[in-house]
This record gives sequence, C-alpha cells and structure tokens, in this order.
Amino acid sequence: GTGADNDLYINQAVVFIEDAIQYRSINHRVDSKSLWLYRWYYSRACQWILSLTITIILGLAFIEKPSSLTVTSDVRYRLSAWNPPCGLTESIELLCFLVFMVDVSVKSYLIGWEEFWKNKWLMAYILTLTVSLTDWIVSLSFFCTEDVRIRRILRPFFLLQNSSMMKKTLKSINSTLPEMASVVLLLAVHLSLFTMFAMLLFARTKDGQQDKEWVGYFRNLPDSLTSLLVLLTTANNPDVMIPAYSKNRAYSIFFILFTVLGNLFLMNLLTAIIYNQFRGYLLKSVQSSLFRRRLGIRAAFEVLSSPKEAPANAQQSYVSIGALLRVLQKVEMDSRCKQAIMRSLKMCSCDQLSAAQFQKLFEELDKDAIKQHPPSPEYQSRFMQKMQFVFGHPYFGYLGNVVALANIVSVCVVLVRDADKQPSERDDFFLGTINCFFILYYLLEMLLKILAMGLRRYLSYPSNRFDGLLTVILLVLEIATFAVYGFPHPGWRPEFMGLLSLWDMVRLVNMLIVFRFLRIIPNMKFMALVVTTLLDLVKNLRAFAGILVVVFYAFAITGIMLFKGAVVPLGNISLFGYLNERLRFYFHLFQISFYIKKVVVLSFKEKYDFMALFGHFQAEVIYCLLYLLFVNLICRWAKIYFVAWWLISSVIWVNLFVALLLENFIHKWDRRCHREPLSDIEYQRTVELMFRDVLEEPTEEELLEKLHQHPHLQLCR
Amino acid sequence: GTGADNDLYINQAVVFIEDAIQYRSINHRVDSKSLWLYRWYYSRACQWILSLTITIILGLAFIEKPSSLTVTSDVRYRLSAWNPPCGLTESIELLCFLVFMVDVSVKSYLIGWEEFWKNKWLMAYILTLTVSLTDWIVSLSFFCTEDVRIRRILRPFFLLQNSSMMKKTLKSINSTLPEMASVVLLLAVHLSLFTMFAMLLFARTKDGQQDKEWVGYFRNLPDSLTSLLVLLTTANNPDVMIPAYSKNRAYSIFFILFTVLGNLFLMNLLTAIIYNQFRGYLLKSVQSSLFRRRLGIRAAFEVLSSPKEAPANAQQSYVSIGALLRVLQKVEMDSRCKQAIMRSLKMCSCDQLSAAQFQKLFEELDKDAIKQHPPSPEYQSRFMQKMQFVFGHPYFGYLGNVVALANIVSVCVVLVRDADKQPSERDDFFLGTINCFFILYYLLEMLLKILAMGLRRYLSYPSNRFDGLLTVILLVLEIATFAVYGFPHPGWRPEFMGLLSLWDMVRLVNMLIVFRFLRIIPNMKFMALVVTTLLDLVKNLRAFAGILVVVFYAFAITGIMLFKGAVVPLGNISLFGYLNERLRFYFHLFQISFYIKKVVVLSFKEKYDFMALFGHFQAEVIYCLLYLLFVNLICRWAKIYFVAWWLISSVIWVNLFVALLLENFIHKWDRRCHREPLSDIEYQRTVELMFRDVLEEPTEEELLEKLHQHPHLQLCR
Repeated sequence: GTGADNDLYINQAVVFIEDAIQYRSINHRVDSKSLWLYRWYYSRACQWILSLTITIILGLAFIEKPSSLTVTSDVRYRLSAWNPPCGLTESIELLCFLVFMVDVSVKSYLIGWEEFWKNKWLMAYILTLTVSLTDWIVSLSFFCTEDVRIRRILRPFFLLQNSSMMKKTLKSINSTLPEMASVVLLLAVHLSLFTMFAMLLFARTKDGQQDKEWVGYFRNLPDSLTSLLVLLTTANNPDVMIPAYSKNRAYSIFFILFTVLGNLFLMNLLTAIIYNQFRGYLLKSVQSSLFRRRLGIRAAFEVLSSPKEAPANAQQSYVSIGALLRVLQKVEMDSRCKQAIMRSLKMCSCDQLSAAQFQKLFEELDKDAIKQHPPSPEYQSRFMQKMQFVFGHPYFGYLGNVVALANIVSVCVVLVRDADKQPSERDDFFLGTINCFFILYYLLEMLLKILAMGLRRYLSYPSNRFDGLLTVILLVLEIATFAVYGFPHPGWRPEFMGLLSLWDMVRLVNMLIVFRFLRIIPNMKFMALVVTTLLDLVKNLRAFAGILVVVFYAFAITGIMLFKGAVVPLGNISLFGYLNERLRFYFHLFQISFYIKKVVVLSFKEKYDFMALFGHFQAEVIYCLLYLLFVNLICRWAKIYFVAWWLISSVIWVNLFVALLLENFIHKWDRRCHREPLSDIEYQRTVELMFRDVLEEPTEEELLEKLHQHPHLQLCR
Repeated sequence: GTGADNDLYINQAVVFIEDAIQYRSINHRVDSKSLWLYRWYYSRACQWILSLTITIILGLAFIEKPSSLTVTSDVRYRLSAWNPPCGLTESIELLCFLVFMVDVSVKSYLIGWEEFWKNKWLMAYILTLTVSLTDWIVSLSFFCTEDVRIRRILRPFFLLQNSSMMKKTLKSINSTLPEMASVVLLLAVHLSLFTMFAMLLFARTKDGQQDKEWVGYFRNLPDSLTSLLVLLTTANNPDVMIPAYSKNRAYSIFFILFTVLGNLFLMNLLTAIIYNQFRGYLLKSVQSSLFRRRLGIRAAFEVLSSPKEAPANAQQSYVSIGALLRVLQKVEMDSRCKQAIMRSLKMCSCDQLSAAQFQKLFEELDKDAIKQHPPSPEYQSRFMQKMQFVFGHPYFGYLGNVVALANIVSVCVVLVRDADKQPSERDDFFLGTINCFFILYYLLEMLLKILAMGLRRYLSYPSNRFDGLLTVILLVLEIATFAVYGFPHPGWRPEFMGLLSLWDMVRLVNMLIVFRFLRIIPNMKFMALVVTTLLDLVKNLRAFAGILVVVFYAFAITGIMLFKGAVVPLGNISLFGYLNERLRFYFHLFQISFYIKKVVVLSFKEKYDFMALFGHFQAEVIYCLLYLLFVNLICRWAKIYFVAWWLISSVIWVNLFVALLLENFIHKWDRRCHREPLSDIEYQRTVELMFRDVLEEPTEEELLEKLHQHPHLQLCR
C-alpha cells in the first residue's frame, strides 16, 4: 500500500541523511528489512562491540606465550610472566572470530552479492577469517604446543579493514610506491657501487698494522655492505672512517662523497617525492567526503520526492515540509544541528522544498559550531562590581602566570641545591613551606576567578578547567600530606607512613606544579599556533598511526616467531631474548624510527662490540664468547629483518609524517593572516572546515549520475 | 662637443647592457672616466685577481701555526707539520689586504659618496679591513707569538661581501630568523620543563642499586639538561632510558613523550617553517634578476635615445640602428647572442627602434641555448652505410651497457672470492685476463661509434666524452701494466716494479671500470631526472654553500683559539688535540651535520665512555684518568660551542637544504609532464629558464621610476 511505501521512503531518507552525516557510502540495500539491519549495524552499540573485539584480539599478544608483560625489563631480575593455560586465550579468540563472522556476513549482505564480488577488502576479510580459523583448529589439536601461529600475524588486518580512512590512506601510500621504489633502487645502486669501490680501496695489505679499516669494516662483501648501510643511517658515522682517516686524510673523501650523496641528496629526495605525492592528499580526501555528504542528502531528496511527482514529467521535483519533518524526527544527529534545521524550516514560508533548498537546509551540518560562553553574573553591590572588574581582567591571569613561573623557579632552585644530597640529609621544610603558600595562592586565584566569572562561565574555558582541576588535586595532596606528616617545620623529614613517603608526596606535588605551568601556552601567540597545528595533525594522523600499528604489530609478531629458536637458555640472559624485549618494547609503546637505527647497529656490531651490547646487563665475558657461535648463524636473518624495519618505520613513515606536517602547517600558516581572532567565540575546527575556502561543490549532474549508478535504488526519473 | 657626448652615451649604453647581461645593478657613476674604471674593475682579469686573493687569504689557515696539514691524522704517528717562519704568512696577508683596499676604494668611488653612506656592506668592509690591519700590526710587533688573532675569524667576511648572491641569501635567512627563534625558544621550554620532570622522576633514592638512572644521566641540572639535549639529537637514544626501563617499563613513557614531542614534532616544525619561508625564495631571486636585466636594457635605450629627441616633447623616443650597432660592437657578450641580435637587426626593415622593439631585440639573452649536434658523416659505400646504421643504433649503446654490467659483475665475483685471501696467495691472472678483454671491447666500441657518428658528433655528447676518456685511460693503464709486468699467465703475481705494484694497477683499473658504469645514468629515465635535479640544486646551492664555508671557517678558527690552552702535552695525544683534529677535518672537507651529533656526544660522554673515545687511538687508561682532571674545567665551554655548532650546521643548514631541495624538485616534477623529450636537441638549462613560465615582466612605469631614482644619470625626460 502507499502507507507502507511512504514509510519505506521515509526510512530510506532517514538512512541516507545519516549516511551523509557520517560521510558513509550510500551504496547499500534499501528495502525495509535491510534498512533496519543497516541502522542496527551502524548503531553505536554494535560499532562499539566491534571495536572492543578488535582491541581484545590485538591485545591478546600481551598475555599470550611468549609474553613479557612484567614490570622490569631486566631479564636477570624479572619474574617469569604469567602463562595462561592452553585454551583460555584460544576461547577468547574464538569469540572474537564469531563476532567477525557476523560482521562480515552483515556487511556482505548489506552491499548485495553483485557488489560483494567487486569488493576486494571483503574477500580478503573472509580469506583471513578462514585462514585464522584453520590455524586455530591446528593450534588446539596440538594442545597449543606448535611453534608457528600464522593467525597472529594476520590479526592487524581486522583493524585495517574496519576503518575506511585507513583503507583510503593505504591506497594513497600504494600509489606513491612506484616512485619510492625508484629512489630505493637508486639507493641500492649507490650502495652497491660504493661497496665495490670500498672493497677495492680498503683491500687487505701485507702490513697487518695498515689494514685496520679492512679488518674492522670491509672484510668481505656482506661486511662492506653492512658498514655502508649503517653509515647511511649515520649511526656508525665517524667511527667507520677513523682507521682510514688515520692512515691518510684523503680517504675521508670517499666517505664524505658517500654520505653527502646518500644521506643529504637521496634520502631527502625521498622526502621530496613523498611530500610531492601527499601535497594534495588531505584536500582530496576532504573533497571526497564532501561529495559523499552531498550525495546522501540528494538521495534523501530523491526518495522523498519520487512518490508524489512520479508520473508527472515536471522539470522540478519537490519535497513537502511535512515529510521532511517526519524524517528529521527519526534521524539521529547532533541536537544543535537538528534544532537549527527545524528553525530554518519554520522560517521558510513555502510549503515545498526544491532540491537546492533541501541541500541548503542541510548546509548547517558543515558549519562551525560557534561556542558562546555563558555570561558573567551581574552583581548589585558596587564593591562586588569592582572585584569583578579586577579579577575578571586578563592582567589577573597574567599575574597568575607570573606566580606559577616563580613557583617553578623556586622548585628548580631547591632541586639544584639538593641534587647531590643523600636522601637522609634532605630537609623538606623549605619546599614544603613555599609549596604550601603557592598552593594557597592558586586556590585563592581559582575562587576569585569563579567569583568574578561565575562557575558556569569559569568552567566553559578549557584553560580554566585544566587549571582548576590541577589546583584541586594539589590541594587534596597537600591536605593529605599535612594529615599524615603534620605541618612542616625545620628538619621536617619524617619516616615512611601511609601510601607514599613524604619525599614522594613532595615530588608528586612538584611534578603537578611543573605540569600546571603549561597553562601559559594559550597566552603566547606562536605557541598557541604550534599547539593547535599539532592537535590538528594528531587528528589527521589517526589513519597513519593505525597503519603504523598494523605494521609494528606484524613486525613484532614476525620477530618473535623468527628469533624464537635463537633464544638459547644460557644462564638467564640471551641476545634475542634481549632483542625480543626490545621488539616488544617498541611494539607496546609505538616507539618510532629513532630506536631502529640503534637496533640495526646493535644487531650488526655483534662481532666486535659485544661488551657494549651487554654493558647494561653486566653480563660476563664467558657468555659473550659462547654466544658468538650462535649469533653468526641467525645474524643474516636478523639483518634482513632489521633493514626492512628501518626502511619502513624509520625512512618511509617519518617522511610521510614530515609530508603531512608540512601540508598542515603551511595551510595553517597561510590562513593565519586571513582570520582575525574573535574574542569570546571559539571555533570548533575540523579538517573539513580548514579547507572550506578551496573545496569544490559537486555539480547536480555528477550527483544524479552517481545516484543512477546506485545498485539497489531504482529512481523513477 | 656633441661627438664627445655621443661617445659618452655610447659608452654608457655599452656598460648598461653589460650590467644587464651580468644582472648587475646600474646604480654607479656614469661619467667617462668612471665608466672606464668600472669596465676595468669588472673585467675578467680584475675579478679573477680578486677571487684569487680571497682564496689565498682563506687558504692561509692551512699552513699557519697551529697547522695540521699532514697525511695521517693520528697524533701518535704524524710528523709535526711545517711551521712557516714568522713574517711569511704575514707578508702574504699584507698583499691581500692591499688588494682589498684597492677593491674597497674603487667600489666606494664607483657608487658615489652619497650612496656609500647608505651601504652597510661597504662600511663593514672598511671596518673589517681596519681591524685586520691593526691586528696584523699587533701580531708583527709581538713577533707572531700572540695567542688571539681576531683577523683570522674576520677572514670569511671577504668571501661574503664579494658575492651578491650570498648577500641576498643571507638577507633571506635573516628574515626567517624570528620564526626560527620562536621554534628554538619552544625547544628550550620543552627541554627545561622535561629536565625538571626528569630530575623529580629520577631523584636519588636510598637504595644504591636502584638509582642507576640518577648516577648515569640525571645527577644534577647540567647533567640532566645534557642528557636530554643529546637525546634530542637521538645520539644516546636507547641507552639513556635503559636503566630506568630495566627498573620499570612505565618510565619509558617519559622518554617517548620527550622524543616524540621534541624530535618528531618540534624539529620537523622547524623544517616546515623554513620550507614555508623559502618556498618563494628562488622565484623571488630570479624575478629580481629579471628586473635588473630589463632595467639595464632600458637604461641603455634611454641614454642612446636622449641626445636626439632631447628637446622634442615627442611621446615616443627612438634609437637609431647605427648607434645600436656601434654599441653592440663594443659590448662584451656571448658571441652566439651577439650574432643572433645582429641578424635580427638586419632583418628589421625600419631605421629606428622603439623601446619595446629594443627590449625585444635583447630577449635573445633569455633564450635557451639550443645545442645542435654536428651531422654524421655520409658514407658512399653500401657496407659502410650498413655499418653506420648498426653501430649508430641506440641498441649498440645498450649492448655496451650490458657488457659494462657484465664486467662489474665479474669484478665483484673476483672480489668476493679473494676477499679473505692473504696478499701473497692472490692470483691476478683471472682478473687480468678478463679485464684485458673487456677493455679491448670498450676500445672497439669507441672506435665503431666514432666510425658511425664521426669524431665531432661523437664528442658533442657528454656521455660519449665521459666514456671515451675513461676508455683511453683504461687502455693506457693496461698497456703500462703489460709493459712493466708482461702478459698475464696463471700465477701472475710479480714483485713490485715501477710506480705502482701490479695489485694497485689492477685495483685502479677496477675502480675506473666501476666508475665507467655510471654511463648508464642517462639511459634510465628516473635516474636522469634525479641527476639533473641534483645538478640544478648544486647550482642554486652555491650561495648557501658559500655561507656554510663562512660559518665553518669562523667556527673552526674560533675552536682552535678557544681550545688552544686545553691542549696539554701529555705524552703525544690529547683530547682537544683530537677535537682540533676533528674540527680541522670538518673544516677542510666541508663535512656537514652528520658528524656534529657524534662530536657533541663525544664531548659530553667524557666521564663514562672515555675508553670508547680513545678506543681508536689505543690510548692507555692512565692518560684518561689524568685527563679527567683537565676536561671538567673546559667542558662547559666545549658544550656551549658544540651546541651552537649543532644548531647552526646540523639543524638549520640541513633544513635549509631540505627546503631548497623540495622547492627545486617539486618545480622540476611539475614541469616534467609539460615538456616532451626533444631528441637531438639539448637545452642548456639555467635557473632563470626553469621559472620562465611564472615570471612577471616588469612594467614600463616601474622601469622608468627606477631609472629616475638613479643617483648619477640625469635623464632629460
């Protein structure tokens, strides 16, 4: 019946508008049941469950065998980590797989079978699930004793396929690969030609004293290649040339040519290429988001307008305001936007909306959210008005900054004075007293500001919230200290009581005071610019960070698997135990790039600098000699592994980061001049808004053409 | 008389056109005598003498006391350098000063006294000369025994003031300084806040075992600051966090936050800022060069046209072709351009030229020099024609590349096989034989190519010249080898004869073969692009390199002076002898940036890693302990010195370089698509031509306004 049809159209419009709000594609099934399933699938609860599942399956690596989730990383002292019984992590995994199977089935059903065969990501998803399940069955049938677990390496795929931003970014990176490969090829040619040169130049001579360079770095082809590769990371930089330079200064020309060509030219060429490729990346991605939004709105318009004007050959179709109101009531969107649209609708005198009017109505979605701070309270008394003027004035804030600086300086002075003192000689009286006074000032400042601005206005500023929260924490800590240890007096050095010692309490207070000093940031123009750029960057970098997590996870798991056999339980330390440690360390905390150099070197130097490697561990010499036998065997694998890691995480990722930073910063910098600072109004900026001036609106023809290509929606016109 | 006036006008026009060709300013005196002096001053001989003088005075540092111009850099083995007698370098210096005095007088006279007072560079020049001369007199009156020689630090100024490009670049860098200073300030705040945090976090504890982090890196304020500063250079990267990480993994969060914020964000922000500032730098400088050229041409037109039309109020002035021909005969310029202009003049039917026509005539100067290769010889015989077709075909060149590759591979195989052999076990027969055959092939290839292309056409290609030259050298070396050591046979391992041993000869031949392999570059598209970009970059970088030389020279001389007292003659090695060595080493060879990190670390680590520092020198432990006493005293100066060096040469200069590379490469890359490869025609590209599409022609009003501001030229209109 028409009633049911009408309900369907309304539901379709609701889903299309929600798609537009979330920048989703509209190419999904549009019958009643599918729409219900679609809204259920994209409901907050479902998406939250999916994210949780992905987090859990990735997090399993921390507790699975071989786990190293212990407080200390020192293999000599640490207790053996808790090993979950066979079947525990496996059953959690199975639950996750079940969720993923539901996910993939719903997704496949919703886009329809025809589209399914074109979607490589979905196919890969199913393949990954199949392989993982097979591996899981194998694992259980061996009672968890098998060595190779492929499914662990495949895990990051689940993270990847769930984020459209990451998929898009990966596509961008993929299109840059040919040019990156050219530069890497060039680097390889550079490296190999110089290696041959080096082997000819630093050949073995008859005089044993003279060929230190040969012994140390250019003994054979792999050694020479390694020495020069490490020189490319600048890690062994002057060392590698010192023996030759001692013999004859002219030898340094070789090394200088190599580093200038390799490091200064070719490496920076990589930066240039990546920057060149990514120059338009942000703009393009924002442009395609805009297109999706306009398309969703247009699709909603078409389904709402089609039932009434279907038979007519009218040039223009219209949507009745009543239908739109019904749709709006059902749509889940930001309440501010919804109210604004409702208001516009009421102000509109006409009864029907054309396509252009319809689009214009929803432009509210693109607008800056203007945040109005609540007004200050109005006092009657003259005295209170004066107080309000004094303590609401910016200069009062500056005074607070000066006091915070004074506090920092006093803490610094005490630190310098006490740096070398034994803990038993320390006297906490001075620091305790001044901190007490400063904290009282902070409390007073907060209260006076609240008096002047009113609580609601005070809390509407983020800097005040930061300030107030820290002041309250400091106050609580100070009161706790006095409650436990009494008031400060000369020689105030009581014994340990309660949760923390007095010294730890004082340190904690001081750290919070240093942290509180960051409140000065918004007061410095350039700092504020830098900080907002960095925050923007963090938003734009989420997709890159996700891909980095994927790469690190895969590398860490591969490393653990590759070097597992290398962990020979000699005493309780081991080279690859140590390396595994490091790997996990990097993985756990998303360490990037800087460390890789060192690890490459550590894994390369094994022959000569073994003591240095184990220096921190105070291992005895005997162990080292025994290790030499084992290390040589697995060293080649380690080299290839670490070089690949260095290339991906240090060279490519850092360059990507620099490219994005350049892009973001230059946009921001260019715009700084155009935009005046608006007092009392804060824009909540999004990436989309940053580019609004340069974005192109899609034309009506493009939108309609795209709509007619929709696989499930049959438009009458 | 009018004749003399006419001559003056002709001479003025000649000088203005020469100014236009050389992109010089036209603001100089224009009377007859001054013009003669001006042309003399800018004659090739005079400018050459000036450059030579600058080179000599800068080069003096290599032979002056304390000189370290010895073959080996190892202080234990090297002979004491030759110390010139007092008065020798001083008299050379005096000669140089005399040349500079003539230079500054002529320059000051030519721009006129009024302009002189506005020109800060000339004032600084005179001041520098005065100070240098005073210092020179002091030096001689002490019989060269005084310690501080200020004039040495001032020397690079002579280089700086002689290049207008360098002065312009310096101005650009200067305008970037405020923003760079902001970032450096931000870095300082970052560093100091984290230092305070670190001192609170890694305070001394009661348990001696637990505070390794405190002992090693955070003992007091200077130590903590140093540790974190070095962490910012990534040089002590994982080491600094290992003790804390061993204790508790969570401590690593502190270090990761520090490096991510400092290295990844703030350091790259510096790159972004510098790139943003230098984005338009090249374009702006080319634009101002264009303006100077147009202005010079216009000035020539004005002086040539003024005598005849002087009284008339004619709207347009004209220049007679005769006058222009007289001017052209006197102008020193590229003969190709001159001929082209003459040709255009003859083709012009009119008798007089308007300003626009005059400008158009000289646009020949801006044009690409199109290089036409001479034609191949035309052979009569059918056989010869076939030969010509076969050996002139590009495939023959590719075959040559394949053979060169085969040769490289064979050399590589032999190197790998012989890598570990004692020199006495080596058999040069195999390598000698195959190299002999390969060199014969190269000779044949060269001869056949000459046959096919004719000698002149062959030599007109740079790749052929490179190829042919190396082939001839290889042939000479091979013949010399056979003449001295006879033909190769199994067990060919004769004793040392003549200048070089057989083994050295073979090595030299192999090195040249590796070098010859570079001929493949033009055949690979991407490589060719990269190489041309790099060559362009080198051209554009001359001014930057000059400034770098200035900075390095000043730093090296300051370092030698500062740390002179620190060289305590204990035995024959010394820490600052070693550092001086390094300084000189850097200075001599313009080592950049990579080394600085290491030096900073070396100079910081003195307390714990002393053995590592002297490892190469195999110094005994006793020396090290004695040094500790001295080093602590001068260590602070060294720190400040090296940090300044690191900031300037590593951070700022490398970022400038990256900015220029990005600029150049992105321009090139964008243009690559527009320009089709033209066979047989090679463009001799200049920076000016690269930007021709985007340059703006100056308007007539701008030119005339500038001309009327000329301090010496009185135009009648």
